[in-house]
Amino acid sequence: MGELRVRSALVTGANRGIGLGLVQHLLALPNPPEWVFAGCRDPKGQRAQELQKLSSKHPNLVIVPLEVTDPASIKAAADSVGERLKGSGLNLLINNAAILKMNSLDTETLKDMSQVYTTNSIAPLLLSQAFLPLLKKAAQGSPGSGLSCSKAAIANVSSIGGSITEMYMWETAQCIAYRCSKAALNMLTRCQSMGYREHGILCVALHPGWVQTDMGSSAGHVPPVTVDASAGGMLKVLSSLSEKDTGTFLDWEGNVVPW
Amino acid sequence: MGELRVRSALVTGANRGIGLGLVQHLLALPNPPEWVFAGCRDPKGQRAQELQKLSSKHPNLVIVPLEVTDPASIKAAADSVGERLKGSGLNLLINNAAILKMNSLDTETLKDMSQVYTTNSIAPLLLSQAFLPLLKKAAQGSPGSGLSCSKAAIANVSSIGGSITEMYMWETAQCIAYRCSKAALNMLTRCQSMGYREHGILCVALHPGWVQTDMGSSAGHVPPVTVDASAGGMLKVLSSLSEKDTGTFLDWEGNVVPW
Repeated sequence: MGELRVRSALVTGANRGIGLGLVQHLLALPNPPEWVFAGCRDPKGQRAQELQKLSSKHPNLVIVPLEVTDPASIKAAADSVGERLKGSGLNLLINNAAILKMNSLDTETLKDMSQVYTTNSIAPLLLSQAFLPLLKKAAQGSPGSGLSCSKAAIANVSSIGGSITEMYMWETAQCIAYRCSKAALNMLTRCQSMGYREHGILCVALHPGWVQTDMGSSAGHVPPVTVDASAGGMLKVLSSLSEKDTGTFLDWEGNVVPW
Repeated sequence: MGELRVRSALVTGANRGIGLGLVQHLLALPNPPEWVFAGCRDPKGQRAQELQKLSSKHPNLVIVPLEVTDPASIKAAADSVGERLKGSGLNLLINNAAILKMNSLDTETLKDMSQVYTTNSIAPLLLSQAFLPLLKKAAQGSPGSGLSCSKAAIANVSSIGGSITEMYMWETAQCIAYRCSKAALNMLTRCQSMGYREHGILCVALHPGWVQTDMGSSAGHVPPVTVDASAGGMLKVLSSLSEKDTGTFLDWEGNVVPW
């Protein structure tokens, strides 16, 4: 697998964890994107300091205010990204923002089920709808007929926790809302791959590994995968994808994860 | 496969379509249940007339007011069912109530995604939580060590539309919200099968077929399966289930459906 080459990319939930790792790795590519858009809820807040530091060093990094559960915020973000791109499209949308609640079958609630689904499953749909014109434009502006991430792609950061086949780490963390939301996100990815193929857009669901982030550590164990390995691995996997890979579910090392 | 034998069963969304068919078939069994509870939103309304007619003929049919998206309504229903059962448990909970919106990738909305998920995926979780004490009681009061529907079971009426592998009838009906909700329901079923095994409760996801109901006809085609064949088939399948089948996804003829 070679290095990823994209003219522009947007990462949601980019102020920390895997999202921040993806932004750092995009900026550090041998051929970095002309524009890296980093979506985060509160660009000026305490929790976005790392992102602010990065942007002072990298003029190609643009921090975009983005609350992924708010359609108005998504529209404003798409408008501002569109303006910045000045007529060229967006190559890569990485739907990374997600939440997790440590609930069990007994403690799960309507409210948590609903919140987790809205952030983890509905938001990637809404973002893809809002950025579709820019993704289409990127696909139309790229040479060649096959699908690829350097042309136009949606990468949904899912989780092996959403694998109905695997039921990964059930004994450690039941997390019903999270598992259901990621199974639904996998379905959404398949739907998008079928619906957006004609527009030249590749769609893939990624399992980032069990990663050393706040979320990954919330089950009370030390996760085995570093943010660096996960983010770097996922970008490598993305660089390797072609037509045949659209609609698949792959981990950060490129292995197929069963639905 | 023999005939289903249960002392008590509850069907949600029981006033029409597949739910009504399930109630009719339960009442017509050679050994009908002592109690068939038919959950419906508005027991006295126009749309519950068939159910009212049935209950005038069958004293073992109890119509239970139930709005499956309202935790207070679910609690009231569980209380009233518990009272009627006078200390014995509930053998079979059939989570059948569901909605469908004919949206595509382009027209799907936050509101529809959210509504469909609440009814199709969250409600079966909440109902199972609320009826868990009665299901446990049924399991404890039944002889034998293996799982079965005559002991205690949760049957979630899912759909092959929720199969990420199959992407059934994508060209005819994209129905993103519905597909995502049913994939999530399949995940919930697997979670329930793993969490409730120790309580002696079998959990299964069922694909009822593409059935001649208002919902089944909403894609503008005539569905191939009658309500009668679907409901009768599902009850036969339920009667045949044992320990090894908990956590599976089966159609109305007993075939395994891939996740």
